Amino acid sequence: MPVNYATPAADQLHAVAGVRLGVAQAGIRKQDRYDLTLIALDAGANAAGVFTKNRFCAAPVTLCRQHLAAGSDIRALVINTGIANAGTGEPGMQAAVATCAAVAKTLGVEPRQVLPFSTGVILELLPAERVVAGLPACQADLRSDGWHAAAHAIMTTDTVAKAASRHIDIGGRTVTVTGISKGAGMIRPNMATMLGFVATDAGIAADLLQALAKEAADASFNCITVDGDTSTNDSFVLIASGKSGVQVDRADAAAWPALKAAIVAVAQELAQAIVRDGEGATKFITVAVEGGGDVAECRKVAYAVGHSPLVKTAFFASDPNLGRIQAAIGYAGIDDLDVNGTRIWLAANGEEALVSEHGGRAAGYTEQTGSRIMKAAEITVRIDLGRGSAGATVWTCDFSYDYVKINADYRS
Amino acid sequence: MPVNYATPAADQLHAVAGVRLGVAQAGIRKQDRYDLTLIALDAGANAAGVFTKNRFCAAPVTLCRQHLAAGSDIRALVINTGIANAGTGEPGMQAAVATCAAVAKTLGVEPRQVLPFSTGVILELLPAERVVAGLPACQADLRSDGWHAAAHAIMTTDTVAKAASRHIDIGGRTVTVTGISKGAGMIRPNMATMLGFVATDAGIAADLLQALAKEAADASFNCITVDGDTSTNDSFVLIASGKSGVQVDRADAAAWPALKAAIVAVAQELAQAIVRDGEGATKFITVAVEGGGDVAECRKVAYAVGHSPLVKTAFFASDPNLGRIQAAIGYAGIDDLDVNGTRIWLAANGEEALVSEHGGRAAGYTEQTGSRIMKAAEITVRIDLGRGSAGATVWTCDFSYDYVKINADYRS
Repeated sequence: MPVNYATPAADQLHAVAGVRLGVAQAGIRKQDRYDLTLIALDAGANAAGVFTKNRFCAAPVTLCRQHLAAGSDIRALVINTGIANAGTGEPGMQAAVATCAAVAKTLGVEPRQVLPFSTGVILELLPAERVVAGLPACQADLRSDGWHAAAHAIMTTDTVAKAASRHIDIGGRTVTVTGISKGAGMIRPNMATMLGFVATDAGIAADLLQALAKEAADASFNCITVDGDTSTNDSFVLIASGKSGVQVDRADAAAWPALKAAIVAVAQELAQAIVRDGEGATKFITVAVEGGGDVAECRKVAYAVGHSPLVKTAFFASDPNLGRIQAAIGYAGIDDLDVNGTRIWLAANGEEALVSEHGGRAAGYTEQTGSRIMKAAEITVRIDLGRGSAGATVWTCDFSYDYVKINADYRS
Repeated sequence: MPVNYATPAADQLHAVAGVRLGVAQAGIRKQDRYDLTLIALDAGANAAGVFTKNRFCAAPVTLCRQHLAAGSDIRALVINTGIANAGTGEPGMQAAVATCAAVAKTLGVEPRQVLPFSTGVILELLPAERVVAGLPACQADLRSDGWHAAAHAIMTTDTVAKAASRHIDIGGRTVTVTGISKGAGMIRPNMATMLGFVATDAGIAADLLQALAKEAADASFNCITVDGDTSTNDSFVLIASGKSGVQVDRADAAAWPALKAAIVAVAQELAQAIVRDGEGATKFITVAVEGGGDVAECRKVAYAVGHSPLVKTAFFASDPNLGRIQAAIGYAGIDDLDVNGTRIWLAANGEEALVSEHGGRAAGYTEQTGSRIMKAAEITVRIDLGRGSAGATVWTCDFSYDYVKINADYRS
């Protein structure tokens, strides 16, 4: 059960002109489930992507990077679940290439205009022939209101489909931003999340789009962690179809701030949805670090707290064993941190309590207060490092029996 | 239940001349359990220690560092469980100072000749008055065969007491090395483990002893991880009483290699015992990385694999979902790693199987083989990075339901 998250209804996911989506049951790993998604882009769209920094990155990630480097006139995305096509060496690359070739033939475009994505089990070869066999059904299903179905078809251990959509008004024109994401485990994105796709019908110049893809990923998918494991397949793609008539070619354009804000907001909503549906999650936890010397050290501390199994099990139990947060701050890697200058607060439901200061327990703090706050489903840990003005936020979840159960049973 | 580990019987733990140990029930956090240990050293012993790098280190850790810096003529160690006296600010330091003063008065030595140690809950103040009240009982109990009782009295979430002992012959004289350790969770030592104490009746010059303490910790406690959480209280102390008549003052002394090897072996046995008794552990896993450019990058990879919750839950389930090992290698932080040059083996019970090479699954590998090997209680993951001649080994355990249970319930 996700924490305070439900998939938007199909009619809440606005179509993006110039983008059509189709799904199929291709039997890639299991039968009778939608496991193949095709996203077709009209000519004229721009696409940009950011991808995992994992050195064991999947074959489709390598191919995406190559195809985007060759130009942003991308015409299709193809996504399979079941098999990640990572840790598959040269045969895996051949399967990814064959997939792109088949999509290109189906749609009458070039293979380099196709971006492939896979998610699922690592170290198993993708059966490209099943992907190829499933493509006609995907093509037949292509429709502009296919976001809801696609959000479901890209799920693996996700318990809910993840999507976000909004309309904004730019100079009297309605611009749409709609996106989907998937992921619940092996979540500690390093450049992007497991899979995230956001499209707008605004037109955005290629260089601006690439910069925004990076910025949006950094403000969203690169701020979450479920288990600290950076996936081999993390991919985030931003698409600008240009069909709304709103076109942005320069960063000083009047329309840019509002458009950018809408895209970042959709990316954040999708990223937070992954944490809310984190494997075994019962609580959504914001770790907000402030007062740091630079953003990098704030992120170190936020991730140390957000990854600590001891902190996460304490939140699961609503046990204010908050010395574990101090310990995580202490080992985060700031060698010259003066712990006597740090402060820790817990907050939920409008209540905030100072837990620790001067290196020890805050004077007014009681465990009753800590326990009460920790029972909430959404909790903020605020940490002041007391050494500067930089800050960083990480979103994470607690750590429960079900995380172990899900990951001990995942393939069976 | 620890993995292939049982506490040695009391008569297997050889007394170390010049070292006496006594325990007491001081009621520090709970009643009716031994929670206070006093170790008294005869005049003439040398002591050296290494301590946690956690910035939120405990007050007793700070005091140990100060007292050792003032000289190595240490005469007593005092260890309490229940409260870690970490995250306790100035009041915590006062409690540690009061403890040392009381021990000094009891034994007729100087406070700077006392090393204090605490382990237990962080962020709670140590009731120094209970420690002080328990000291007479400890003193009355002091005996040279007290190692077995002390190993039990320093336990917290440990399910078994941890001790190791051996005799070696040096030039016709028998030299003894005996040690105890504790720890089961919050285990990712960075300089030393939760608590480890090793004593020998050899005499070792102060500078040699300090270098050996570091070397032994690096080869033992600094190679283990249970949950990746570096404790606030990690401490390892090495004592050389000199009572055997064997004295080593220079690193080129004939007796030094054998003595050093014995001390390192005892430290490794104690460190591995902590992993075998890791919270919820059902398997003992050796991650041996070879073929690295330097030791640091080998350790990065070994720890990435050893910390990954996905790898650890797969071992718990005996599920050969070994792409998770590739993923961990890939995100370990070697930016220029050529994954096509890496190889991964699984080994247990004398069988070794090549799982992955050329970036994908090895030709002869089958999941049946992987599953059979993973069912063993002791498993080695061997990883060749294919880029040099350096290596590093980390010992870890699997990740089970019971880890969550223990840490969600720890204080209740």
